[in-house]
Amino acid sequence: MSIKITGTGSFIPSRIEKNEDFFNHEFLNADGSTINSTNEVIVEKFKAITGIEERRYVKPELLNSDIAFYAAEKAIADSKIDKETLDYIIVAHNYGDLKHDSEQSDTVPSIASRVKHLLKIANPKCVGYDLLFGCPGWIEGVIQAKAFIASGIAKRCLVIGSETLSRVIDKHDRDSMIYSDGAGAVIIEESTEEGGIISHESATYALDEAHFIFFGETNHPEITDKRRYIKMYGRKIYEFALTNVPLALKSCLEKSGYDIKDVKKILIHQANEKMDEAIVKRFYKLHDMDIPEGIMPMTINLLGNSSVATVPTLYDMILKGEIKDQKINKGDIIMFASVGAGMNINAIVYKQ
Amino acid sequence: MSIKITGTGSFIPSRIEKNEDFFNHEFLNADGSTINSTNEVIVEKFKAITGIEERRYVKPELLNSDIAFYAAEKAIADSKIDKETLDYIIVAHNYGDLKHDSEQSDTVPSIASRVKHLLKIANPKCVGYDLLFGCPGWIEGVIQAKAFIASGIAKRCLVIGSETLSRVIDKHDRDSMIYSDGAGAVIIEESTEEGGIISHESATYALDEAHFIFFGETNHPEITDKRRYIKMYGRKIYEFALTNVPLALKSCLEKSGYDIKDVKKILIHQANEKMDEAIVKRFYKLHDMDIPEGIMPMTINLLGNSSVATVPTLYDMILKGEIKDQKINKGDIIMFASVGAGMNINAIVYKQ
Repeated sequence: MSIKITGTGSFIPSRIEKNEDFFNHEFLNADGSTINSTNEVIVEKFKAITGIEERRYVKPELLNSDIAFYAAEKAIADSKIDKETLDYIIVAHNYGDLKHDSEQSDTVPSIASRVKHLLKIANPKCVGYDLLFGCPGWIEGVIQAKAFIASGIAKRCLVIGSETLSRVIDKHDRDSMIYSDGAGAVIIEESTEEGGIISHESATYALDEAHFIFFGETNHPEITDKRRYIKMYGRKIYEFALTNVPLALKSCLEKSGYDIKDVKKILIHQANEKMDEAIVKRFYKLHDMDIPEGIMPMTINLLGNSSVATVPTLYDMILKGEIKDQKINKGDIIMFASVGAGMNINAIVYKQ
Repeated sequence: MSIKITGTGSFIPSRIEKNEDFFNHEFLNADGSTINSTNEVIVEKFKAITGIEERRYVKPELLNSDIAFYAAEKAIADSKIDKETLDYIIVAHNYGDLKHDSEQSDTVPSIASRVKHLLKIANPKCVGYDLLFGCPGWIEGVIQAKAFIASGIAKRCLVIGSETLSRVIDKHDRDSMIYSDGAGAVIIEESTEEGGIISHESATYALDEAHFIFFGETNHPEITDKRRYIKMYGRKIYEFALTNVPLALKSCLEKSGYDIKDVKKILIHQANEKMDEAIVKRFYKLHDMDIPEGIMPMTINLLGNSSVATVPTLYDMILKGEIKDQKINKGDIIMFASVGAGMNINAIVYKQ
């Protein structure tokens, strides 16, 4: 028996927010002090490091659960399963349903229940729950689906990563340019075909690292309401990720029994292009190799960091032929990997 | 191999809110109209149906993650394990960390990461995540721990249910009197002893039922801010629960292979005493039996409905001898059961 992904789908919001749309923002340092650069220079530096040129935001009338549903619908159609045969709907997110004009997150009922409602699935044995695990939530959902299937509790799961980060950003913070909205979904099933999930690795670093990504007030000193926004210590995260993610990838690969030369693609969570390049470079260096050309497909330049949605969206786009010069063929060994709030790290070795 | 609970702990907030503390509230109907009764009559009727005389609220300085940590500390001490050997920290909640004076839920990092931080667990292989599944979240966490252990992914898990409902209640809604705060935790492990988790049942009803419990605005028509509170259609929930929970209990018991006469205790989520009595009565009626005396230990009269915390707190209190005339002995067959937002239902047959 193997545990395989049999369908994928994603939802990419239609509203494009370009780097130049930030030219009129008033960016400030975390301590409220002025930044001694023009916005043009700030944005240019930002692009040079992160690789982000534009990102996507949902329209005001859409909720996180709506876009999760759109991605789910496509994954179900792609897999050709009967939706009533699903045993689990697992939705990874971080901030719940946030209305366009509200700071209040709505998580009751769960986003999974809302998606099930929108999918009009009647079967009560299809169990829906939400999983909070920072940006690595979707990969963790896949690992949980593996546990349910391997233990005989389930045969078929829908795993969604969906987020509307545009609704938790502080427009006075340069980091606000990183975040994006989106949703990706897969169907995972018990299969008689060979391949599928070969190994996984999962970790939580919660000493000092617990608060590297947090909820904090605006950088603008004259705004005194208590509203909080997604905030991060970018430098600390960079160092943390560069130290720990290559080791997690290595450990996961060792468990799989495959050689590094077998790996055809690494689909890694994208928050910063330079950081991802450094991580994957170090992973190969641990095996005395240079980073192979085209091993790490990227979408960050046009899609930004959509948290839990980034990896499943990337996977879906490659399979659907929507990323230039990137293909995954049957039998290919690929790796999924992510790092994010928690701080959590995970990885999967998967045989297509 | 069995999967057993080897330690329990709970945190019961010290602040007691008595029924008479609601005498000066201005209660209104959901449509904003006046209720044609004095508050004394409203409160008396409320008590007659729900059984609730008082409930517990956390102090202003405490967060949901703090009380989750307190319960976790006790469960770890009770089980005598080395906390660094935990493979998972699973925290069931619904509203995240809500500060006393804030309507903004904080869920990044996850409550599990915060608990791990407070526990000062260094081992990164101890993976922490949050689970949103309405009031049945803690039982669902136990089921997920079972899946991890049964599939060989984990050997030892900490499962916490923690909630501060006092921070999402509309004081103009009579239902506000139901809700309470609290936290309960258990350690679950692979064991060579016999017994433990024998069977489980889990379900999500998300057609019309998805929005039986929801986030809605205050009943007070003159308060026009958009802040939302926990709201429910009590009558619909009552009918739903009475129809579906007895069948879930029956199905779970059948899977276990045990007879109804073997069942020594039913630890059911408590939102309404009369509803729980009707559910358990109907469960026995499905087996042509009358409800046995003392089968359903209750804490609702003094602790209200603390959501995900109710069942683990009740279990902990019985094991610690804190509930009069209630004992669970080694070898006893007991059932855990819950129903809540989603709408979700679950049950476990457990051999002590």
